[in-house]
Amino acid sequence: MATIRDVAKLAGVSVATVSRVLNRNGYVNDETKRKVTRAIETLQYEPNAVARGLAGKRTGTIALILPDISNPFFPEMARAVEDVARTNGYTVIFCNSDCEGEKEQSYIDILLNRYIDGIVFASHTLRPDDVKRMKQHNIPFVVLDRARADLECSVVRSKNFEGASMAVRHLLEVGCQKVAHIYGPQDVIPARDRLLGYEQSVKDFHWYTPTLMEPGDFRLDGGMRAAEALMERHPDLDGIFVGNDLMAIGALKALLRLGIQVPEQVAVCGFDGISLAEMTEPELTTIAQPIYEMGALAAELLIKKIEGAVAENRIHELDVTLIPRKSTQRETRS
Amino acid sequence: MATIRDVAKLAGVSVATVSRVLNRNGYVNDETKRKVTRAIETLQYEPNAVARGLAGKRTGTIALILPDISNPFFPEMARAVEDVARTNGYTVIFCNSDCEGEKEQSYIDILLNRYIDGIVFASHTLRPDDVKRMKQHNIPFVVLDRARADLECSVVRSKNFEGASMAVRHLLEVGCQKVAHIYGPQDVIPARDRLLGYEQSVKDFHWYTPTLMEPGDFRLDGGMRAAEALMERHPDLDGIFVGNDLMAIGALKALLRLGIQVPEQVAVCGFDGISLAEMTEPELTTIAQPIYEMGALAAELLIKKIEGAVAENRIHELDVTLIPRKSTQRETRS
Repeated sequence: MATIRDVAKLAGVSVATVSRVLNRNGYVNDETKRKVTRAIETLQYEPNAVARGLAGKRTGTIALILPDISNPFFPEMARAVEDVARTNGYTVIFCNSDCEGEKEQSYIDILLNRYIDGIVFASHTLRPDDVKRMKQHNIPFVVLDRARADLECSVVRSKNFEGASMAVRHLLEVGCQKVAHIYGPQDVIPARDRLLGYEQSVKDFHWYTPTLMEPGDFRLDGGMRAAEALMERHPDLDGIFVGNDLMAIGALKALLRLGIQVPEQVAVCGFDGISLAEMTEPELTTIAQPIYEMGALAAELLIKKIEGAVAENRIHELDVTLIPRKSTQRETRS
Repeated sequence: MATIRDVAKLAGVSVATVSRVLNRNGYVNDETKRKVTRAIETLQYEPNAVARGLAGKRTGTIALILPDISNPFFPEMARAVEDVARTNGYTVIFCNSDCEGEKEQSYIDILLNRYIDGIVFASHTLRPDDVKRMKQHNIPFVVLDRARADLECSVVRSKNFEGASMAVRHLLEVGCQKVAHIYGPQDVIPARDRLLGYEQSVKDFHWYTPTLMEPGDFRLDGGMRAAEALMERHPDLDGIFVGNDLMAIGALKALLRLGIQVPEQVAVCGFDGISLAEMTEPELTTIAQPIYEMGALAAELLIKKIEGAVAENRIHELDVTLIPRKSTQRETRS
């Protein structure tokens, strides 16, 4: 299938010029316009941009790229994206990038050629090159949660650094005297910000040592393994801030299997606020992100971009909230 | 965009004939072939079928329609579909039908026009009309888990009726004397078969009464509410077979909040075998479906159909397994 590059080459103009013709924005002289139109016809070029720009017709479809649908955080967020999309007459299709850059590229290729109006990226593998390609194809997009900070685009995420400080403060307030951290993949911005927030909050305590930080890859079994490793290394630790709820559910299970009482011996605080956090025994204290609001805001921004109502690129950072439950509810020692 | 019906109308032939031309199977005389080819050119008809049939080119994309991505059962199954698809060079896009027929129709519309090689349906809202449309468009598809029995297509599911009997038998063997059932939506075949399996297993006991069956809609909160309702109605019940693990996790939580000991006072058995079932406290006994095998088999069948290696429609029913854990581990009374 012909790409915008093929059209540009055949017409002897730049990709940007083809894009201007397709979307009727910016000045293009009539002769150039004719060349581009002829190239489009010759190549039977029919991307989304044509459907939207020339025929003035939208497809009513947006794509949501998720990094890992087995983490309930993402289905909960997807719920909001779908609700808002639907209210506005759009259908959502999903892609599961599995945190792999290569898979994400192939999704982008597929989507660019398949009459999609816009894309919400909730994965962290988006590269500057991908951003450039989407801009060339004039596909509106919004980045949700995991975006790199250096990309020029609209971003919706929550206050991860502040949330981590909040978690550590809470654990200290309930009497913990040695607080560890289980962190997510460090190429994921929220995981990195939570780790930095933890480090900043504990680094001046006499008990602090770097071996209190253990990776857990944001998954159930990663959380279990990390909790076991921490307890073996620091049998005297009495609090764990876990970088997401899924790992925290795994950590709780590992502690109970080791015969360690939660919260009496070790208090546990998660991050995310997924509904499963309330199903554990003991129920899990967590730093709740406004999951639904995040998804809804991303979908609204995308639809505004698609419909031409907003163009600016901004980072929207939403507040997080401490939800204290049984897993940290213990007598403070004095 | 032109449809296969438009092509048939313009060429003055049946849709089946157009399909035969597109896919080069079955006999079509040369004059008819020319008429169809001319109609395709005139209408610039370019569906998937053209890409596959005439140009001999596949898109390398299949779609997976899921009924509810917030139930971890489906992401786990999707994992297998993706793995097999990827091994064979296909990318998977996901659709979340939310158990709504209308949403599913609009996905089908979108997919038929977007260069998809085939579709795996894991939702129960597929109607005979949809099946007809996909056959007209010559889109291969396979139905996973929730299909209606009266559809003419390939189906992969597990032995739900037998699994339910297995669950009841296990609860009786660990000493339960009054076993209730929380069931899923009755328009979903596996939910219906599990309910029938329960009913068949208990109907001859003196303690059996229809009010021991309570709906729970396959969700966490549905399971919680159903367990509360059952305990209020039958404070003496001592076993619950819950129609899926997600509701069982909710039921466990509701029982613990009511101060009821699991398994000592009430034993609980779920259905599905999702990995979260092992994270609860007590850990959940369940009837495990071969989730990964189901997804993998569906993807393999679909790819074989796409590649023309298999045409037959068959129901593949896979075995289930009892996984006994703490939630039913109690002394048998004699």
